[in-house]
Amino acid sequence: MTVGKFITLEGGEGAGKSTVLAAVRDLLAARGLDALVTREPGGTPAGEEIREVLLDTTHHGLCAEAELLLMFAARAQLVRERVRPALATGRWVLSDRFTDASFAYQGGGRGQPVERIAELERWAADGLKPDLTLLLDLPVVEGLKRANGRGSTDRIEMENADFFERVRAAYRARAASEPARFRVIDASRPLAAVLANVRRAVSGFLDAARVRA
Amino acid sequence: MTVGKFITLEGGEGAGKSTVLAAVRDLLAARGLDALVTREPGGTPAGEEIREVLLDTTHHGLCAEAELLLMFAARAQLVRERVRPALATGRWVLSDRFTDASFAYQGGGRGQPVERIAELERWAADGLKPDLTLLLDLPVVEGLKRANGRGSTDRIEMENADFFERVRAAYRARAASEPARFRVIDASRPLAAVLANVRRAVSGFLDAARVRA
Repeated sequence: MTVGKFITLEGGEGAGKSTVLAAVRDLLAARGLDALVTREPGGTPAGEEIREVLLDTTHHGLCAEAELLLMFAARAQLVRERVRPALATGRWVLSDRFTDASFAYQGGGRGQPVERIAELERWAADGLKPDLTLLLDLPVVEGLKRANGRGSTDRIEMENADFFERVRAAYRARAASEPARFRVIDASRPLAAVLANVRRAVSGFLDAARVRA
Repeated sequence: MTVGKFITLEGGEGAGKSTVLAAVRDLLAARGLDALVTREPGGTPAGEEIREVLLDTTHHGLCAEAELLLMFAARAQLVRERVRPALATGRWVLSDRFTDASFAYQGGGRGQPVERIAELERWAADGLKPDLTLLLDLPVVEGLKRANGRGSTDRIEMENADFFERVRAAYRARAASEPARFRVIDASRPLAAVLANVRRAVSGFLDAARVRA
């Protein structure tokens, strides 16, 4: 039996992840791949409750250590309950954020040590790495302008611009260090151009994986 | 300024922790110590929500890794939000369970490696160790009989006797390896005898800490 592929979408606030997620799902469907679509933090009953604890704006005093542990608790469950079982049956999985987000937000943003996150990736996330990661990159000011236009703001979205600059820098550094896995998409361009770039990146990956239309 | 002392209560199901906790609190009060009383998992707004995720019986498929991470997420927050600040002002802290419970339940019970738990103790719990730990020890069968008489059962209490045997063995091994910190109380004896032993242990500790009546 073939093993499914694992594609993740990463990026800061207002980068357009939801729109791109739908486009990638459709692209996979057009090749006959009914992907499991999930999101982080969350994606399981326990994980969605953990998400509520994480994003609750009344928890403004949540320490960086607790935030990191909660992210990996939700991830540990998601990997074992949904992602690994799906991949094992040959199904593809598409996730709105994964471990790269912890390196960016809890590492870059909150200053949690990279080695600590890497160690959690090893045992809590069972060492699972995406096969392809699309990083939607855009200047922080631009992203916050778009995100603010959306209305409601969660606990992490309430951080200041410096925090998001560190998040962006950490994302870009990870992309630069793993060029075979990452495709960096310039999300500051008009939507049609962004989607065209996403389609090109995903199609190239599908062709390499020998998935035919 | 003097720093407060940190006392924890540990033990399996039906060991009588609630009764003993009240007795220890009264004993401290009689010496003029208004201790901060807390519990694990929980003790903070975020921690109590994490407790709900952990004990929810519908989460029967919660993996051992997520359970361990959630326990330490609640603990990380409890240490930084409540325990460390209280101790720093000279206040004593009394907690219904702490990190020893993770070594017993997630280590002994679920088989999570001891080194993994020790590493989390170091950074997530900020290396905080109790000054005195009372371990209420009794045979598993006896404890389960008492706990079942109480009615409602949470997710962890639903485990089988083998699980609780491993928990008890891990607790006893920790007590044996740190005799200066632990006092093992035979909780299978009549309540009056148990409380007498608890009072003797705590009074001895208070005398050594030079806290006068």
